[in-house]
Amino acid sequence: MHRTRVRIVEDALDANNTIARANREDFDRAGVRVVNLMSAPGAGKTTLLEATLGDLGGVRAGVLEGDVQGSLDADRITHLHVPVVQLNTGSHFGGECHLDANMVRSALPELPLSELDLLIVENVGNLVCPAEFRIGEDARVMISAVTEGEDKPLKYPLMFRACELVVINKIDLLPHLEYDLDRFHHHLDSVHPGVARMALSARTGEGVEEFAAWLVGVAARAVAHEH
Amino acid sequence: MHRTRVRIVEDALDANNTIARANREDFDRAGVRVVNLMSAPGAGKTTLLEATLGDLGGVRAGVLEGDVQGSLDADRITHLHVPVVQLNTGSHFGGECHLDANMVRSALPELPLSELDLLIVENVGNLVCPAEFRIGEDARVMISAVTEGEDKPLKYPLMFRACELVVINKIDLLPHLEYDLDRFHHHLDSVHPGVARMALSARTGEGVEEFAAWLVGVAARAVAHEH
Repeated sequence: MHRTRVRIVEDALDANNTIARANREDFDRAGVRVVNLMSAPGAGKTTLLEATLGDLGGVRAGVLEGDVQGSLDADRITHLHVPVVQLNTGSHFGGECHLDANMVRSALPELPLSELDLLIVENVGNLVCPAEFRIGEDARVMISAVTEGEDKPLKYPLMFRACELVVINKIDLLPHLEYDLDRFHHHLDSVHPGVARMALSARTGEGVEEFAAWLVGVAARAVAHEH
Repeated sequence: MHRTRVRIVEDALDANNTIARANREDFDRAGVRVVNLMSAPGAGKTTLLEATLGDLGGVRAGVLEGDVQGSLDADRITHLHVPVVQLNTGSHFGGECHLDANMVRSALPELPLSELDLLIVENVGNLVCPAEFRIGEDARVMISAVTEGEDKPLKYPLMFRACELVVINKIDLLPHLEYDLDRFHHHLDSVHPGVARMALSARTGEGVEEFAAWLVGVAARAVAHEH
């Protein structure tokens, strides 16, 4: 029974990768770089976008919001006057706990790709399944809030390994927590040695310029011919 | 394609419910009441168990720890000198983001059911899928940490609806957040009107005696003949 399940999962991931490549080709043709932004619920994905998308120099950014239900995050992003599309996994996709390539593909017609340099896909808040599904992105980022504790890399290693950047958020709360930042770095290096990381507070704005600069850098990347 | 997926999900949930009933019969026969404890990653499930399981009067408690990988939480619980079994979804269950009835059933032989009054199953940290899978429990509880924001009931309504008790944790951090507790209650009532709730800090111990008393009450429940 377990083997059958693993087989089904593998088939689903194969199909996903095929669609992810098709997405990637569309993004490349349009000259849009894509960031897959992941985290646990409430780690601050939307707040970080609010703190950075208003000031990306000349980079034209858009956002694809993934949620099980509702459009709270998309409504928040709308105030930034960037194109935003809400994708709900609950309405047509069985209430899935993650975005996959097919869901993203279903939203592409609603996105003004030709007018964008950078598309940020805010995934469903979840530290497990989003890491398994490529969506055609150029870069995967995750946010780990210090309020979640230092042990998260050890408990959700696939997520921390799948990303090229780890954002440590909510550092304004460090004085009020027993959170050992050195221990977090140690755990992070044990599952993804040397992965790029930055610490910031999306709420106070401390350190967010570094993340904004990173986004600008992704937008400037040449098209990778790996697909 | 979506309809096929929904069909597969429904079949899986049917099978799950059958096994959940078998678990429940085993629990009833042994006179053990079972609590399914759920939350997002880092909301404080294990810390709350550490703060309460040492002092439940005469109630003999055990813990089943669910994680994708590792035994960090089980190691923490071991110090409390209660029986604890670690269940990893990563080793035999395809890295699932939730526990299901079959996984719990696979762990039953390792649990000293006849020596317990109360079994607490700490689910995988996730606000989506755990709510869909019954495991044979008597009660479902979720923890929502104030650091996650007030909007979580609106974004993960199934989880908040599936529970008979919502624990609002990390209230010691309220002075350092822009968290509106009234707004949270309002959102919670909009998805699960009047559901029982309690606010506490597992870290400082404020309010944990109320949760301990609730656990004692669950352990004292008569066997429900609903299966």
